[in-house]
Amino acid sequence: MRVSLDIVLDHLLKTSTIEGSMTMVLVREAIGQTLRSARTSQGRTLRDVARDARVSLGYLSEVERGQKEASSELLNAICMALGLSLSGVFSDVSAELKSREGVTLTVVDAA
Amino acid sequence: MRVSLDIVLDHLLKTSTIEGSMTMVLVREAIGQTLRSARTSQGRTLRDVARDARVSLGYLSEVERGQKEASSELLNAICMALGLSLSGVFSDVSAELKSREGVTLTVVDAA
Repeated sequence: MRVSLDIVLDHLLKTSTIEGSMTMVLVREAIGQTLRSARTSQGRTLRDVARDARVSLGYLSEVERGQKEASSELLNAICMALGLSLSGVFSDVSAELKSREGVTLTVVDAA
Repeated sequence: MRVSLDIVLDHLLKTSTIEGSMTMVLVREAIGQTLRSARTSQGRTLRDVARDARVSLGYLSEVERGQKEASSELLNAICMALGLSLSGVFSDVSAELKSREGVTLTVVDAA
């Protein structure tokens, strides 16, 4: 059976809503990715940076994997251990978020 | 008694160290300031944005004042309620952090 595109579109517009479904982008994942990239580009180990920042290795590892929200105070400590400014790190976080943001248009049938 | 500036400077250089003392800049304060600026520039109330983001008014108020670390999930909800992308918000957060980062030169008398 063939139906015209107009009829199909008309049906969709009458019975459906077109929703923008955004991929859930998480700030803690972008922060973790940014910190991990900075650390590895310096050729440093988790143990080394964790010691300098006075945080536990497990904590730093969880933050880097986006599994834990870092507190502002510990973010300062980690950035200082990496020799980076907060503003520079968050400029990179913004770029990381932008690369992850994408909008997918989804037709939701409401009929 | 008047002494020449040269003598004072010479004394300071011989007996002191000049240290950079950084103000503790907190990410949650920069995030709060950014979100508050966005909301007020839209002429919207805390109540209005809190309702759209499905967070309590008290929570949003504490986040805006930099008193509470917002979770990544609730940051998404607040940004969506404000019609802003996370990457745009964090670009502003980076600029806010940069404006707060400042080095104060302090003369520490080591004599």
